[in-house]
Amino acid sequence: MDIEDKKKMAALAALDRIQDGMIIGLGTGTTVQYMLEGLATRIKNEHLDITGISTSDRTTNAANELAIPMHDLDDVPYIDLTIDGAGEIDKHFQGIKDGGAAHEYEKMVAISSKKNFWIVDDSKLVDTLGHNIPLPVEVVPYGSTKVFKRLENEGLNPKFRMVDKDHYYLTHEHNYVIDLHLQSIVHPHHLAEWLAHQVGVLEHGLFLDIVDEVFVGTDKGVKNLVPSREKRY
Amino acid sequence: MDIEDKKKMAALAALDRIQDGMIIGLGTGTTVQYMLEGLATRIKNEHLDITGISTSDRTTNAANELAIPMHDLDDVPYIDLTIDGAGEIDKHFQGIKDGGAAHEYEKMVAISSKKNFWIVDDSKLVDTLGHNIPLPVEVVPYGSTKVFKRLENEGLNPKFRMVDKDHYYLTHEHNYVIDLHLQSIVHPHHLAEWLAHQVGVLEHGLFLDIVDEVFVGTDKGVKNLVPSREKRY
Repeated sequence: MDIEDKKKMAALAALDRIQDGMIIGLGTGTTVQYMLEGLATRIKNEHLDITGISTSDRTTNAANELAIPMHDLDDVPYIDLTIDGAGEIDKHFQGIKDGGAAHEYEKMVAISSKKNFWIVDDSKLVDTLGHNIPLPVEVVPYGSTKVFKRLENEGLNPKFRMVDKDHYYLTHEHNYVIDLHLQSIVHPHHLAEWLAHQVGVLEHGLFLDIVDEVFVGTDKGVKNLVPSREKRY
Repeated sequence: MDIEDKKKMAALAALDRIQDGMIIGLGTGTTVQYMLEGLATRIKNEHLDITGISTSDRTTNAANELAIPMHDLDDVPYIDLTIDGAGEIDKHFQGIKDGGAAHEYEKMVAISSKKNFWIVDDSKLVDTLGHNIPLPVEVVPYGSTKVFKRLENEGLNPKFRMVDKDHYYLTHEHNYVIDLHLQSIVHPHHLAEWLAHQVGVLEHGLFLDIVDEVFVGTDKGVKNLVPSREKRY
């Protein structure tokens, strides 16, 4: 089965869980795009009263085109459910989001949500994070070479994300992204802790202990995975 | 003695420690302004080869007017010495900087420096931080009411810093400032740790375990204080 079919299948399975009256956090990415299209159809056909909260300019634009009613995060008391994609999910249900431009927003929306679902195709499930994709770290431009050196000294194999050889990639908030090419993140909490204390680092792509359910598109249909939160340590 | 005389006295005492060839981090504030003026005079009279690294637009502008040669932090391998002010310094030599617009830059410059000096008048010395000034916290505008609520739930007495009743104060990087009115910060490391983990918080005004020497302007002249780093816990 095509990877796009798997993404779409996962998106539509999560979409089924949206109920009338809900405030929904809308993630960012290609899999989320399928969910947005399905949501627009449901709103129209079932006359649902849904409020969407965006995590990026890209999602805001897509939602506006699809006429999904949107509000600002600051205008709602909480979010019922956020549905987002993920770049990788490990066997402990910790994730990396690799988009790079919207971590701050995505995390803010995620922690303001009663429930978080991730929708992915099965290529995103890994034993250990960092194998297929780098970990993006958003840094303030001023002094960023100093931050880069600290990351390098810590053995984190950093590379500035570039648009082309002369231009740095810029996030929504006009910051740089440094990608950490780690191959294997054995202790993601430890790394997140270290990154949290680095001056000049704003956010990073590790999403730990956040997801409540994962919908995985596979050749055999959608698997719905629910992390056990019993053994966190 | 006038408070301005004390500030100036402290600034000039620290200025004496600048030597030919040094790369100097230049802090931000009214006390630093005296140091900049003194530095410009020394550069001119003694033909010193000094490179300044700025911590704010305000300092960049002042340095340019005074013809102090400036470089970008990213263009130098390290900083020899940074001289900055402080809003409060407690008896353990932990500090609050209350300016609000330049914490990210000031911290980045501070941790890139071999030595950090603070120059203050004696009204800035307190037993416990937070008594005379609030602790500023820089937050991303998107979702900032959610961050505010978290700060409030933590009992941190937050208030958005406003320019007037309709306009938020904006930092260099176009973020908001939430001032924490705490009266007494008994465990600054504990608070800094908590703040480091809050999504949406970029930086804060606590400068812990950073300063190497403090120059204090008093009625009886300048006191030079050197923290003992033996008992950090």
